[in-house]
Amino acid sequence: MSWNTFGRVFRFTTWGESHGPALGAVVDGCPPGLALDEGAIQPFLDARKPGTSKFTTQRREADLVKILSGTFEGRTTGTPISLMIENTDQRSKDYSEVAKAYRPGHADYAYDAKYGLRDYRGGGRSSARETAARVAAGAVARLVIPEVTITAYVAEIGGDAIDREAFNAAQIDQNPFFSPDSWAVTRWEKLLDEARKDGSSLGAVVECVATGVPAGWGAPIYAKLDADLASAMMGINAVKGVEIGEGFAAAALRGEQNADPMRPGADGSPEFAANHAGGIAGGISTGQPVVVRVAFKPTSSILIPQDTITSAGEATQLSTKGRHDPCVGLRGTPVVAAMMALVLADHKLLHRAQCG
Amino acid sequence: MSWNTFGRVFRFTTWGESHGPALGAVVDGCPPGLALDEGAIQPFLDARKPGTSKFTTQRREADLVKILSGTFEGRTTGTPISLMIENTDQRSKDYSEVAKAYRPGHADYAYDAKYGLRDYRGGGRSSARETAARVAAGAVARLVIPEVTITAYVAEIGGDAIDREAFNAAQIDQNPFFSPDSWAVTRWEKLLDEARKDGSSLGAVVECVATGVPAGWGAPIYAKLDADLASAMMGINAVKGVEIGEGFAAAALRGEQNADPMRPGADGSPEFAANHAGGIAGGISTGQPVVVRVAFKPTSSILIPQDTITSAGEATQLSTKGRHDPCVGLRGTPVVAAMMALVLADHKLLHRAQCG
Amino acid sequence: MSWNTFGRVFRFTTWGESHGPALGAVVDGCPPGLALDEGAIQPFLDARKPGTSKFTTQRREADLVKILSGTFEGRTTGTPISLMIENTDQRSKDYSEVAKAYRPGHADYAYDAKYGLRDYRGGGRSSARETAARVAAGAVARLVIPEVTITAYVAEIGGDAIDREAFNAAQIDQNPFFSPDSWAVTRWEKLLDEARKDGSSLGAVVECVATGVPAGWGAPIYAKLDADLASAMMGINAVKGVEIGEGFAAAALRGEQNADPMRPGADGSPEFAANHAGGIAGGISTGQPVVVRVAFKPTSSILIPQDTITSAGEATQLSTKGRHDPCVGLRGTPVVAAMMALVLADHKLLHRAQCG
Amino acid sequence: MSWNTFGRVFRFTTWGESHGPALGAVVDGCPPGLALDEGAIQPFLDARKPGTSKFTTQRREADLVKILSGTFEGRTTGTPISLMIENTDQRSKDYSEVAKAYRPGHADYAYDAKYGLRDYRGGGRSSARETAARVAAGAVARLVIPEVTITAYVAEIGGDAIDREAFNAAQIDQNPFFSPDSWAVTRWEKLLDEARKDGSSLGAVVECVATGVPAGWGAPIYAKLDADLASAMMGINAVKGVEIGEGFAAAALRGEQNADPMRPGADGSPEFAANHAGGIAGGISTGQPVVVRVAFKPTSSILIPQDTITSAGEATQLSTKGRHDPCVGLRGTPVVAAMMALVLADHKLLHRAQCG
Repeated sequence: MSWNTFGRVFRFTTWGESHGPALGAVVDGCPPGLALDEGAIQPFLDARKPGTSKFTTQRREADLVKILSGTFEGRTTGTPISLMIENTDQRSKDYSEVAKAYRPGHADYAYDAKYGLRDYRGGGRSSARETAARVAAGAVARLVIPEVTITAYVAEIGGDAIDREAFNAAQIDQNPFFSPDSWAVTRWEKLLDEARKDGSSLGAVVECVATGVPAGWGAPIYAKLDADLASAMMGINAVKGVEIGEGFAAAALRGEQNADPMRPGADGSPEFAANHAGGIAGGISTGQPVVVRVAFKPTSSILIPQDTITSAGEATQLSTKGRHDPCVGLRGTPVVAAMMALVLADHKLLHRAQCG
Repeated sequence: MSWNTFGRVFRFTTWGESHGPALGAVVDGCPPGLALDEGAIQPFLDARKPGTSKFTTQRREADLVKILSGTFEGRTTGTPISLMIENTDQRSKDYSEVAKAYRPGHADYAYDAKYGLRDYRGGGRSSARETAARVAAGAVARLVIPEVTITAYVAEIGGDAIDREAFNAAQIDQNPFFSPDSWAVTRWEKLLDEARKDGSSLGAVVECVATGVPAGWGAPIYAKLDADLASAMMGINAVKGVEIGEGFAAAALRGEQNADPMRPGADGSPEFAANHAGGIAGGISTGQPVVVRVAFKPTSSILIPQDTITSAGEATQLSTKGRHDPCVGLRGTPVVAAMMALVLADHKLLHRAQCG
Repeated sequence: MSWNTFGRVFRFTTWGESHGPALGAVVDGCPPGLALDEGAIQPFLDARKPGTSKFTTQRREADLVKILSGTFEGRTTGTPISLMIENTDQRSKDYSEVAKAYRPGHADYAYDAKYGLRDYRGGGRSSARETAARVAAGAVARLVIPEVTITAYVAEIGGDAIDREAFNAAQIDQNPFFSPDSWAVTRWEKLLDEARKDGSSLGAVVECVATGVPAGWGAPIYAKLDADLASAMMGINAVKGVEIGEGFAAAALRGEQNADPMRPGADGSPEFAANHAGGIAGGISTGQPVVVRVAFKPTSSILIPQDTITSAGEATQLSTKGRHDPCVGLRGTPVVAAMMALVLADHKLLHRAQCG
Repeated sequence: MSWNTFGRVFRFTTWGESHGPALGAVVDGCPPGLALDEGAIQPFLDARKPGTSKFTTQRREADLVKILSGTFEGRTTGTPISLMIENTDQRSKDYSEVAKAYRPGHADYAYDAKYGLRDYRGGGRSSARETAARVAAGAVARLVIPEVTITAYVAEIGGDAIDREAFNAAQIDQNPFFSPDSWAVTRWEKLLDEARKDGSSLGAVVECVATGVPAGWGAPIYAKLDADLASAMMGINAVKGVEIGEGFAAAALRGEQNADPMRPGADGSPEFAANHAGGIAGGISTGQPVVVRVAFKPTSSILIPQDTITSAGEATQLSTKGRHDPCVGLRGTPVVAAMMALVLADHKLLHRAQCG
């Protein structure tokens, strides 16, 4: 979890800018002998790929992944797996405006304040394109945890939430919103169309559920499973909040309302009467589904002009043109799922290290 | 951020169980030459200390800290600072009930599932007593960031929030609730009394604001300042949610509502028209106040009997007696502040390492 | 391997100065369920203890270890194990001379140059007393690798080597020199007596052999087993060289002389005709004994006056009085063995993490 | 220093196999604003490049480096620098023999024992081709430490050492042996020719001296500068020994012989009468030249047939044909220099982090 590397035993390092020749990830510590080729990764990148509907950025990237190392005859060898995705649609637009002025809400000013210079083309390293590398690494992580099923979906856009009664997991990849509720799809389509026409953007809440996680993963005290998930999710571009299980709602409950009573289960594991805890107690998985909720702010890149300053410190106004996601939470959904897989894979191996 | 160590350059490692002879922290990587003695740490421990009002656990711990290494003639030497707090009130009660059955909502079952055994006396390592070590380490961290002022307070108990108009920072340490709103104090007193009498407990929301953080701290991509804060806060006992700035509310906003426009400031730094971002963009501080909100669930230890299972897997009921905080969020407030200090100190040094 | 923490999965952090109230180690990531009490650690500390013969420093330290956390009912719980050793014989001598001038060959000048101040009492953190904490941690590490037998001994003092033909492992703990060759004992006694009388000191070479290490431990490329052993040993006070297997002698050999031919062994594992490699190939254990050689320089603290400078930068002469080991390599022997155990325990767990 | 990542603040991760499409390094934590393009890296790769004389492997690799990220307009941006070198001369030879049998002295058996499978083409990840990535990363590290001059050379081949009196630094890059002694060149040419004709190989000793390192770099206790150098060097392919300063020779000296007396220097820094310590005391640089000696074993790949076993555990004989370095220490010289630069760059930043 340092600089551009995430994880302890199952680790990945990402690199690349929005408008450089390529971006990639190096996955390290992966167990040997797992079947892996590009075909095991590409579908996850396709789900995150831009340009698939009018509700995402119109940048067109094939996002084809190449495996440059770490496999032999279709299996992982235990050595680092280098994944590369070439950038193909870095439109040669005029960046002079963004080069001179800071886009409010973006990392522009902060990067300049930190590094003294920045690659302003498409946001450089702070671009959400970096998340393609996470998704590629996440596809490898999934191979490490075949016992786990990860489901991520959009639960809310612009304050309009799905109806839990209408939840249908089969719907999720049948619409451009990763929505499990087909009624919400119709409403969100309208909401996003309005926002787009207004030159505005919308926030979203993404939920992610991992089932099949056995009891016992997590490394108290400072690598608690929930702490790692919080770090993993909060680090995704545009994320401003993370909840585990009941989350902030738990703060308004009384102890007996938030309880997860247990009784003996059929298979020797306990059965829980509820899952307010979101599958984690004391930083360790309980065997229940691990449940995370992630808040994405509305994209900062909007057409509506805003006050800002130039690099030279002078007042100006900026209207961010170009190709942007009106709701960055949508394409954030596969990224949330990838980070869940990456955290769980690391913790599976960490647990095996200490507890055999 | 591995096992029982937190941080990269300014690092601390904690140890100790609720009912062992002592607990402590080893702070490593601290800059040399800082004035440090027990007196610089004790007031923070006193603020967190149990037994100071009827709204906290009645366990009585002096929580006196001893510095065992790392200072010479009242100054830090750059070598590890070992801090120890002896446990003095480990009441020799009968633990046979807790030894045999898992307290629902507690880490009991998860620890057993992970480690195959557990120190059941007072929760062992999963006890909130561990947070005393964080508070002690946090007091050292504060010395590293004298330019920063950290204010933490309870913003909500059991769903009842403070009135922002009534906010008075001077109130915070004048009441047992760390409340900045004296009207809320009266209401919360009543709320908590009721909960206590019912043998129940209440959740809380704690807010923490750090002012004076210069623009430029934070280490993209996987050690973003907000990602580290999320990890730091989510790892505190009973925490289930973390927000930066606008947090989940941002997900319901449109881009222009969530914008933080800039204009030239008097001192060369920009002035911001708002702080929806909570002082962090792209994982790097912007110079605005860093704002974090943390959700504490209601204490799981309640007198109201709940269904659970024994270690042998048999059904039983448990009513958790003993000395417990009816609202663990209260004493969590100094812990949240300590974790803020620890994250910021680490990032100050990390920034200095890379950017000079 | 950062600051005062060593290891990745099986990690330990040490703290403490020569003349502080205590020193200690926090062992983290230890597997649960191992039988551990002070009795499992004390014998290793006793072997390293000062004051046991006239050939070691006359400082008298009981070096009694206390376990402050991480065990319950005599077993490790998987939580951090805090080990503390109180300093009891910090003689209140006059340090004014050492406070003002730098002892040549010591860390005095370097510490001042780095930190701007130093705890000059007995060398502070740079004192070999720190190695007591390593030995204590190493005793815990041994519990993690019961399949491994570690033997360390002095192979050479002041250029006078043991006779390999006279090697008798049973001799090692029967003499104050950890010598496996009883003839060498007689010669070394004389050598050291002379050096002591001259107010001088002698260097030594310590060898350490670990048998029972299975093939497969080690984590290429930058955590190779031999790289970690090199780091572990070179970091011990007064060590200036580390060899694996044939070491520097291999540089003078031809390929066929340095070969370790293999043939099928009785138990399915290969038999090797030689062990020039010292049990490690490509950074991974081969199943042969792991062999390390470590060079200790002669103690820098000698009575013979030497030119040096004061903290103020003025010329002076210093004759280091006080209680010192005339041959620091002697008491380094249990430290070398401890570091071997610590590296192997970490790699056992790392291997299990990745390869199951 | 974990898996395939080296360093703490200035970190690099390498990937790639001998016969994959490419290999590379991701350099992370690099300070921003440094002038960097391929031209700053290529000369170091050229010095290590195979096929430049008959004394190195005849594999022909252009070893052209591409910078894929982390720079903008010719300057480092503070984001990860991805360096890629394509493999172009992976001769499509028949690997069936090596696939079936383990080359003695190679990592073949150990990799199989660890991972259960291995990429046998050219040694896969255990090939010395990996060191190209270190050299590329090392070129970036040099930009971080412009105050330091690093000189590496071969001091000994097959037991035949240079004459210190004939040392001429200007000679080093004028001969294929990195020899500072032109007389040795003539002898080594003959020695290596004989070894080649015999189908054998020779070991070598490489020395590396870094001048300009200020006093104060190094992070006691477990990240001592010498401990890190030992790890860095011992992890290079074929290295079996590392010495700092006097090294093993110090073990045969008396205290006064090994002393480095000090006197006031002209510029306020002390002058040292000797440098037995190799520029490091207590794990911290003293301001003197940092001196490391590294022992390379003779290449294991020799034509002289040796007993070995097949993957199936049967006895066989193997004569390693193919293109190999008869003295791997030669091309190891630029690798040693690169690792020196990488360790020093990391410690410069670490020191700045803690001590400002």
